[in-house]
Amino acid sequence: MLSKNQIKLITSLQQKKYRKQYQLFFAEGKKVIQEFLDANYELHSLFTTTDLFLSVDTNKIHTITVGELKKISALTTPNSCLAIFKIPKEKRTTPNGLILALDDVRDPGNLGTIIRLCDWFGIETLWCSEETVDIYNPKVVQATMGSLSRVNVLYTNLEKKLSGIRVPIYGTFMDGKNIYEASLLKEGVIVMGNEANGISPSIEALVTQKIAIPRFGNLQQTESLNVATATAIILSEFKR
Amino acid sequence: MLSKNQIKLITSLQQKKYRKQYQLFFAEGKKVIQEFLDANYELHSLFTTTDLFLSVDTNKIHTITVGELKKISALTTPNSCLAIFKIPKEKRTTPNGLILALDDVRDPGNLGTIIRLCDWFGIETLWCSEETVDIYNPKVVQATMGSLSRVNVLYTNLEKKLSGIRVPIYGTFMDGKNIYEASLLKEGVIVMGNEANGISPSIEALVTQKIAIPRFGNLQQTESLNVATATAIILSEFKR
Repeated sequence: MLSKNQIKLITSLQQKKYRKQYQLFFAEGKKVIQEFLDANYELHSLFTTTDLFLSVDTNKIHTITVGELKKISALTTPNSCLAIFKIPKEKRTTPNGLILALDDVRDPGNLGTIIRLCDWFGIETLWCSEETVDIYNPKVVQATMGSLSRVNVLYTNLEKKLSGIRVPIYGTFMDGKNIYEASLLKEGVIVMGNEANGISPSIEALVTQKIAIPRFGNLQQTESLNVATATAIILSEFKR
Repeated sequence: MLSKNQIKLITSLQQKKYRKQYQLFFAEGKKVIQEFLDANYELHSLFTTTDLFLSVDTNKIHTITVGELKKISALTTPNSCLAIFKIPKEKRTTPNGLILALDDVRDPGNLGTIIRLCDWFGIETLWCSEETVDIYNPKVVQATMGSLSRVNVLYTNLEKKLSGIRVPIYGTFMDGKNIYEASLLKEGVIVMGNEANGISPSIEALVTQKIAIPRFGNLQQTESLNVATATAIILSEFKR
């Protein structure tokens, strides 16, 4: 059974304002939920139509119907379960190695894919400008496929953050150095820009190494690469 | 003004069955439409709220209201124009260099991103299994950002097609050879698999070079890469 208040709470969590107010977010699907449970995220409540979850406090489990799940799901095709978790405190770690920084990435699917890439390539720290889409946006959570629990994400004033560091700052620009020929160090920050406008001028001024992914197709016409696929190519090139 | 028949035609083109029957597809947004016009796709009709298009037969242009565009658009946030084009005949070219082959890629966004990558990396030929999502699906058309007009796409029985060739056939598998160490030739076919199931057994049997993108993150837990980002990394590695 699902109460009116539960429906109200869950649907409100689709908005950043309420996620911030309640310090809660939700995830859907057994696999994704299990990843958060395994990573010791604190469970608030779990709504399921069929799935069994081991080692979860049964007081927190609510069995609901498929129709009820449809009401609370953010997915076009709802899965079989939805869980609310507490938003953990940002870890203030001292990052080492490569750091990825996002300058106003707005698309939830792109951010989710980029977090998955960080996880794959062992990038432990992701800095996001304050205008970057919220990692607890339901579409981001689903797109990360659970890898969100393994990447430290910090929302910050990127300009201030980058002003205070001494490692190289890499950024992708049309006139940058061919990434296949540039010297790519094992320590530094890689900045990826906004979908439409790229890296903003104030951040560009802080970039110490301008790089570029060369294009091999029709030089005149080819569109720029999507920010998530560009991130894939750049991280691969740094790590290979 | 938009007639009932026009609305019916356009909305029917969201379905593959009717695209096949009428041999028509549609594209939205000035930039994408202009790319198809520049590539000499035959225009059937164009519906616009504001945009001017030069060198288009004015008999084919219909000025419509924002409300009317909403009725025919496949986008959540409609652009300012929508154009119907004739589906061109598949070009039976003799491909050379690298060919990309998709074994049942089902997500329109993934196919669109992959076509954009082909364009970027100068891959001129894309073979799609018959179960791969249709390139004229409106979501694919939009995701390609116009690059569809610069890649030759052929839907084919992939098993038959791959049985008859003599160049190396590359496929990504968990136990494949590290792509950063494998010898990657300038001629061959690269097969990418289905989102959930990877490359099917009948195609796997035809792969001559098994390759893998090594993971650098937590070896136990990291999810696999999305097929579009994996394609980005592989094409970059072949072309660098």
